[in-house]
Amino acid sequence: MTAWTGSAGAMRPGDPGALPTPVLVVGTGLMGASVGLALGRAGVVAHLRDHDARHVEGARSVGAGTVRPPGDVGLVVVAVPPDALGTAVVEALREWPQAVVTDIGSVKAAPLSAVAAAGEDSARYVGSHPMAGSERSGPWAASADLFDGRAWAVTPHQRSAPTAAAAVRALATTCGATVVELSPADHDAAVARISHLPHLMAALVAGSLLGCPPEHLALAGQGLRDITRVAAGDPALWRQIVAANAGQLRGLLESVRAQLDALLTGLAGDSVLETLLQRGVDGTRLIPGKHGARDPLQSVLYVAVPDAPGRLAQLFADAGQSGVNVEDLRIDHDPTRPVGLVEIVVTATSAPTLARSLAERGWSVHS
Amino acid sequence: MTAWTGSAGAMRPGDPGALPTPVLVVGTGLMGASVGLALGRAGVVAHLRDHDARHVEGARSVGAGTVRPPGDVGLVVVAVPPDALGTAVVEALREWPQAVVTDIGSVKAAPLSAVAAAGEDSARYVGSHPMAGSERSGPWAASADLFDGRAWAVTPHQRSAPTAAAAVRALATTCGATVVELSPADHDAAVARISHLPHLMAALVAGSLLGCPPEHLALAGQGLRDITRVAAGDPALWRQIVAANAGQLRGLLESVRAQLDALLTGLAGDSVLETLLQRGVDGTRLIPGKHGARDPLQSVLYVAVPDAPGRLAQLFADAGQSGVNVEDLRIDHDPTRPVGLVEIVVTATSAPTLARSLAERGWSVHS
Repeated sequence: MTAWTGSAGAMRPGDPGALPTPVLVVGTGLMGASVGLALGRAGVVAHLRDHDARHVEGARSVGAGTVRPPGDVGLVVVAVPPDALGTAVVEALREWPQAVVTDIGSVKAAPLSAVAAAGEDSARYVGSHPMAGSERSGPWAASADLFDGRAWAVTPHQRSAPTAAAAVRALATTCGATVVELSPADHDAAVARISHLPHLMAALVAGSLLGCPPEHLALAGQGLRDITRVAAGDPALWRQIVAANAGQLRGLLESVRAQLDALLTGLAGDSVLETLLQRGVDGTRLIPGKHGARDPLQSVLYVAVPDAPGRLAQLFADAGQSGVNVEDLRIDHDPTRPVGLVEIVVTATSAPTLARSLAERGWSVHS
Repeated sequence: MTAWTGSAGAMRPGDPGALPTPVLVVGTGLMGASVGLALGRAGVVAHLRDHDARHVEGARSVGAGTVRPPGDVGLVVVAVPPDALGTAVVEALREWPQAVVTDIGSVKAAPLSAVAAAGEDSARYVGSHPMAGSERSGPWAASADLFDGRAWAVTPHQRSAPTAAAAVRALATTCGATVVELSPADHDAAVARISHLPHLMAALVAGSLLGCPPEHLALAGQGLRDITRVAAGDPALWRQIVAANAGQLRGLLESVRAQLDALLTGLAGDSVLETLLQRGVDGTRLIPGKHGARDPLQSVLYVAVPDAPGRLAQLFADAGQSGVNVEDLRIDHDPTRPVGLVEIVVTATSAPTLARSLAERGWSVHS
């Protein structure tokens, strides 16, 4: 269980490195077609296959690769929906007895079990999971940039060959992603906690809005929008993901239910409620990245921006003029309000410079 | 139970309109001091009072008003923590028998009950609740802009005088906010659903990260950061808020627990899971604002931005050059990744223009 992130900085995204070729992509929806496009950007022409003729033709038409059958295959990338993953991986291992096989599904123990259950040699199989996606679907929504800068989990196992893991790492870096290496079980435990449980909780919060009078929803702010955003994802896909990771999710869900039980006895404000809220604060501090963790080296400036054409663009232009590097920003507004608030995150040392520069250009800035 | 939002567009923020003066602000933390600053911006000097001499001096020093005692008072704005709210409102009604009294706390039935229980005439009391705040606290973090463009709930009740409600609406619009009028019970039901339940769920998700190995957290993406962001809020304040609205929250929490119970029996992928996920999708579509609801008139462009000084500022400058009005944007990156993805929301008709303009300037853009 080690995080392997060393090569991403050293390796130029787009360098095919140790990638075995030809590459066959099985399943040409958004994810598979994006792999084809990302490989093409690096000079590797992917061979495309899909049961759905419309999808494979769509992937070809957007430039994701060729539909010509490969004579030989170095690496098979299985990119089919979760329910079909195990079968497709087993078929790939049988059809291409010399190839390394990976998949890019959201759950990793299940396809490995399918390989073992089918009696296949799993040395050539190493699963993987790029942490990227889109609310859209199908090859027409694919993009060569989809994986740029994203984490891509690579999950070797006890029987996998080191060369197979190296091939899958090369796939990830060639597509522009950063490799995070962990075991299949660790991967599934991780995504249960950081993705699948949060998705279900977001769906519960969003679902609780059904039947809510519109005038109540008029009080909604950015917090509610942020919490529920992921719940808009494709329910058919998420049903398969959650079902495939039910084993890892059960314990987490039981823990949440136990905390809800305790909370319902302690709502009047006793220590149960305090503990739950403090755990929440502590948890947010563990999350890497610029939103979750409070970085003492960064400052936030708040700028009021009228919701009128050109004003936001003018703010960006003025911020650019200041010479300060903007680390992050967030906009809070809705169509019924005349003014939006823009949060600009900069290093603490450069915040006074940007604040002064924007104020001189007539912006209302506070920190 | 009607939403009253008519005057915000017609009334210039900063126009004191029908505001009774002098205004006394009781409690000069972030919220009270921001009310003072916003009133000052509109030409109304607030009188400031706080048990904490450091706070009242802080509020004065940032320009939130005067510490000179008022000879007479037209409107008292009570801005103390939830646990102290009822007592402070009753005291204000007794001390200033001619004044309108409001408060700006997060829960509205409890202070009204305190007024009734104390035997006070509640005609002069109308509670309110600006939907604004900050992760920071204290008068030093206050801002005249805090309420600009935000919803401000005003909650008349059966015994309140129309003139009292009008005075509180004038306070809200003078501070730059948009009035949403509903009953105290409706307000509390609304915030239980759109704010307090989501906060508790976010805290449960964030709390579930405790003990998570750092290499698992390396897979975290924007979704987790968005879902958990509000859980970083002050736990002492949120304990008081949740406890004061326990009655409205109980039914919502029981419904969530019942759905969790059902889910734990249906995790393998049956209809319980599908229903929960579909309810989530449907719920997100109810939320007003640019993130939650899918607006068919808007498009999203994705731009890959190297995480290097000046690149984001350059993107803003280039976007400004295109002449297209940016409706919204979001940045997804973390410090371990070399490239960030910027999502730019524009009207569907202007998306091709911006995409072409940015591509011509060398940006990698996809939609």
